[in-house]
Amino acid sequence: MGKIVPFNGVREDLRGRLACYKDDWTGGFNSTYRILAATAYIFFASALPVIAFGEQLGRDTEGVITAVQTLSSTTICGIIQAIVGGQPLLIVGVSEPTSLVYTFMYDFAKNRPEIGARFFLGWAAWVCVWSAFMLAALAILGACNFINRFTRVAGELFGLLIAVLFVQQAVKGAVNEFRISKFVNATEEQFQSSWRFGNGMFGLILTFGLLWTAIKSRNARSWNFGPGFFRRFIANYGVPILVIVWSAVSYARVGSVPAGIPRRLTSPNPWKSPIATTHWDVVADMNDIPGVYIAAAIVPALMIVILYYFDHCVSAQLAQQPEFNLRKPFSYHYDLLLLGFTVLLCGLLGLPPSHGVLPQSPMHTRALASLKKEATKELHINITSSDPGSPMNKVNFDPEKDVDPLLPVEVKEQRLSNLLQSLLVAACIGAMPALKKIPSSVLWGYFAYMAIESLPGNQFWGRICLLFSSSAKRYKALETTHPMFMHTVPFKVTATFTIFQLVYMICCYGITWIPIGGVLFPVLIMLLIPVRQFVLPRFFKREYLQQLDSAEYEEVAPLPQSLALKEAEAQGLSVGSDTSDDASLDHFATAARGEIKHPLPLPLHNHFGHSTNTHEDQL
Amino acid sequence: MGKIVPFNGVREDLRGRLACYKDDWTGGFNSTYRILAATAYIFFASALPVIAFGEQLGRDTEGVITAVQTLSSTTICGIIQAIVGGQPLLIVGVSEPTSLVYTFMYDFAKNRPEIGARFFLGWAAWVCVWSAFMLAALAILGACNFINRFTRVAGELFGLLIAVLFVQQAVKGAVNEFRISKFVNATEEQFQSSWRFGNGMFGLILTFGLLWTAIKSRNARSWNFGPGFFRRFIANYGVPILVIVWSAVSYARVGSVPAGIPRRLTSPNPWKSPIATTHWDVVADMNDIPGVYIAAAIVPALMIVILYYFDHCVSAQLAQQPEFNLRKPFSYHYDLLLLGFTVLLCGLLGLPPSHGVLPQSPMHTRALASLKKEATKELHINITSSDPGSPMNKVNFDPEKDVDPLLPVEVKEQRLSNLLQSLLVAACIGAMPALKKIPSSVLWGYFAYMAIESLPGNQFWGRICLLFSSSAKRYKALETTHPMFMHTVPFKVTATFTIFQLVYMICCYGITWIPIGGVLFPVLIMLLIPVRQFVLPRFFKREYLQQLDSAEYEEVAPLPQSLALKEAEAQGLSVGSDTSDDASLDHFATAARGEIKHPLPLPLHNHFGHSTNTHEDQL
Repeated sequence: MGKIVPFNGVREDLRGRLACYKDDWTGGFNSTYRILAATAYIFFASALPVIAFGEQLGRDTEGVITAVQTLSSTTICGIIQAIVGGQPLLIVGVSEPTSLVYTFMYDFAKNRPEIGARFFLGWAAWVCVWSAFMLAALAILGACNFINRFTRVAGELFGLLIAVLFVQQAVKGAVNEFRISKFVNATEEQFQSSWRFGNGMFGLILTFGLLWTAIKSRNARSWNFGPGFFRRFIANYGVPILVIVWSAVSYARVGSVPAGIPRRLTSPNPWKSPIATTHWDVVADMNDIPGVYIAAAIVPALMIVILYYFDHCVSAQLAQQPEFNLRKPFSYHYDLLLLGFTVLLCGLLGLPPSHGVLPQSPMHTRALASLKKEATKELHINITSSDPGSPMNKVNFDPEKDVDPLLPVEVKEQRLSNLLQSLLVAACIGAMPALKKIPSSVLWGYFAYMAIESLPGNQFWGRICLLFSSSAKRYKALETTHPMFMHTVPFKVTATFTIFQLVYMICCYGITWIPIGGVLFPVLIMLLIPVRQFVLPRFFKREYLQQLDSAEYEEVAPLPQSLALKEAEAQGLSVGSDTSDDASLDHFATAARGEIKHPLPLPLHNHFGHSTNTHEDQL
Repeated sequence: MGKIVPFNGVREDLRGRLACYKDDWTGGFNSTYRILAATAYIFFASALPVIAFGEQLGRDTEGVITAVQTLSSTTICGIIQAIVGGQPLLIVGVSEPTSLVYTFMYDFAKNRPEIGARFFLGWAAWVCVWSAFMLAALAILGACNFINRFTRVAGELFGLLIAVLFVQQAVKGAVNEFRISKFVNATEEQFQSSWRFGNGMFGLILTFGLLWTAIKSRNARSWNFGPGFFRRFIANYGVPILVIVWSAVSYARVGSVPAGIPRRLTSPNPWKSPIATTHWDVVADMNDIPGVYIAAAIVPALMIVILYYFDHCVSAQLAQQPEFNLRKPFSYHYDLLLLGFTVLLCGLLGLPPSHGVLPQSPMHTRALASLKKEATKELHINITSSDPGSPMNKVNFDPEKDVDPLLPVEVKEQRLSNLLQSLLVAACIGAMPALKKIPSSVLWGYFAYMAIESLPGNQFWGRICLLFSSSAKRYKALETTHPMFMHTVPFKVTATFTIFQLVYMICCYGITWIPIGGVLFPVLIMLLIPVRQFVLPRFFKREYLQQLDSAEYEEVAPLPQSLALKEAEAQGLSVGSDTSDDASLDHFATAARGEIKHPLPLPLHNHFGHSTNTHEDQL
């Protein structure tokens, strides 16, 4: 990195991106089909969570912030990122951490007579102002060079923490379906204990129904039924479709069930709601905030900075994984600077700010990726020469797991898909009345689904499973990732490391339960950097740490692809006969926070001179 | 078979079984552990369905026949089969066809003033008398030699029909949870529309909860979590345990839910109920049945004979599959004669008769089977030499699918396990008050589970799936069975054959919907014999028919095991490192009606000189 020169990074980025700015647009308009498919795909993937968080915020902030605001924020920031942003592959939106911090902020503000619900947005604006300046400062000082200090251990711990928070939200929601919700006329028929019981039970069915079917739909590609294009369609768009299906189911009338059952989204109509109008004089409200609270705003601001700096950079990082073979330059510093600006803008408009989100950003790149011609040919050769009678094909041999990292891909790098999906999100605001037909219980199911979807690829989670799996089957537990450490690190060490990580995460989770101090939970994440860099090496051998938590500053060189490819062919790997581009690229989507996958073919442990038996002994 | 000599078959059987009768007992008492495990296993497998059918009959016969009667019948017949029966591996019990025919009989009788509910059992006794004599006649004339006329096409069609009826029952039951059930005080709180809605929804949760968890528990052996013995335990006893678990869940109290929610089994207390007493003077009632109805009793009797002759023989057949390497002789004729006697006995006692049941009978043999020593050694060699890095182990390579049919097994052939499980069933009658704590909705889930459990191994079902699976994945659809016809019969032919079979089954199902004439549905099954033997050969090439529906009278010789074993080893098949006897024998349990599996290793198509490409072309 060398010594810090202000604006150095930003200037670099701008030079790089401006060079290809024109091509970003022309390239987009030239390759239409894949762009549009990717656009629709990402639109659903980013709109649904944003609506979900909006609903969550609506309940936690007593309607001060609703899905209308979260959608607006996502739209505005998305359009800005697409047009003047550095890396157009980066998808921005309102995230779980944001709504969490905002909830803490609201809990703090509502009991303060000087702020309260009325002036909350004004105060939040000050938080944004502080955050904006700090983010800008970080960008100008080139702080992005430090992002590699956030290693797997931090990224995956954070990822799992988010998953836990999602599940908690889902459970809370499902349980509340049995209770009388706040701000409603409790005298209505639907709130009699008998109907509440029915509503709760119906809610459970919708929640688990969506969860189960959504999970099933994700691996539609490996179904035996239906033509390939249909299975791919389900795998890509199944979840939004299922949200519609289960919403339709919720209208099934059994006997004399009151219209209020099941309960549905409470988001207000943006065209009617009085709240919406109050957003445009937030700036005025800012003047009425007492100085002491303006100062106090630094605390949540700091948390937002930590979270955003981390999330924004890691999203960009994962959207530009080496496997994607991107041709155009990075733009970490400039994008962070731009983030500062959008945070400020959102604050002044009384909207919760947006930032680069996971897993949508890598999903976006993946949706735009395609196998290079020769690679595809390669594929077909394998297919025709593959023996359906052989065990390789008998058992569900899954190309996604083993072959893909070796296949060279090319990505349509352009700004059109991001712009279009942002405009579609904007359309959602108009469609709010339609969205209100979605039962809240379906949303709880969607929360649980998002949590579960974030697990595969998270090596931390994989190692936790490893702790509980029977020794004989251990090597199977991480089938999908087959990480190097399985071969090189003794299980005892892996176990200790995992337990430490688990305890640390539980602490982070515990903090979020503290009424208002919970806002400090990002500090613990931040603390992981020194802990990882200075404390852990005292307890674990360096080479083990490298395997378990490959920090770039102590990275082992990954195997060159060509060699790996040969290796794989030598092992006679062949792929199922209906592999499709996006099918064979699936695993990129499941890349968890902070995880950067290296192309490791299965038989790779041979490179480390491990015979099978020693491997067996290790387990 | 030569010409028919009365009593010839029976005499043969008796001579054969008497020779080893003493050993049947001594052998049992000598090998305790495996016996007891198998006993518990089979007890649950046969008791739960019998209770379920009892509940079903209780509703359909307005309480004239309940679980008390079905359990009693199963107990009595079981003890008789175990002590004086020919083949002690055969498990008898009250089955779905029985309860179906009895329901038809009741619907007929209840509207006849001369019979009605009061004299139903007397009339049913006459039906049993007729059936008993016909069954005895069949046995004496050696009709069992014709059992091979019932080929796969009939057996599997029947199996699937039963499955459909189970599902229908489950759906009916689940829907009725929303309605006011008959014979109850509809004024109770729990029958208000609001609580009925809640009851129905709660019911759905319990139904699907049991169904889903039960299905999951079945493949506990392949779980990665928990020690092997635990997973085996779950796989064996998971379902009854889950019935208890979900029953416990049903007691979870949410708010002020009335005690009547969810609804539970209605089976009467055998010690209190007035009905129970009326059973002992059934013989007296028989005198009060008008002659015309005594004559009419021949019709249902004929149906019972068809069903029982078919089911009883096929159960015995599957309990004595060649793969089990049984040492002791068959006893088809004598057992059929004994069946005649037990049917008579049950009739006179006012109980629904029992007969050999599927899939419990083959499950029983399987539970008693163990791998021969040398085979086990063979296994361990493979394990230690297996490479965890190789794709073979990477993908979920499942020993059950591929290796087992090749492993020589030995079965503890004795009478103790059957006797003990019958006594345990008897104990259930005493435990009736406890059984009444099971929610009816859990039972509906169990019905659906039984239906789904009966599908794997049913090649008819497999071929139906094949119709809907994408051409590219077709060869995958039948992975588990990998039948020969996949290699030798053009898909068009397979499809035509399957569609014919499907239409035929739909006709059978349609008939059961005819109010009272529905009792004739077994005739259609019977008709399949001439259709298969004389009609089908006109439309399908003989060799194709042999592959699709291998009738013994036109059987192709299966591959000798030793050769098959070599083949498999040549292909380097190795097995997961925690294979257990019963794990590697699992597939026997899933053997569907009328299916007799031949030991076919995967790579077998090589024997038929099919290169992969020709195979690919075929699909």
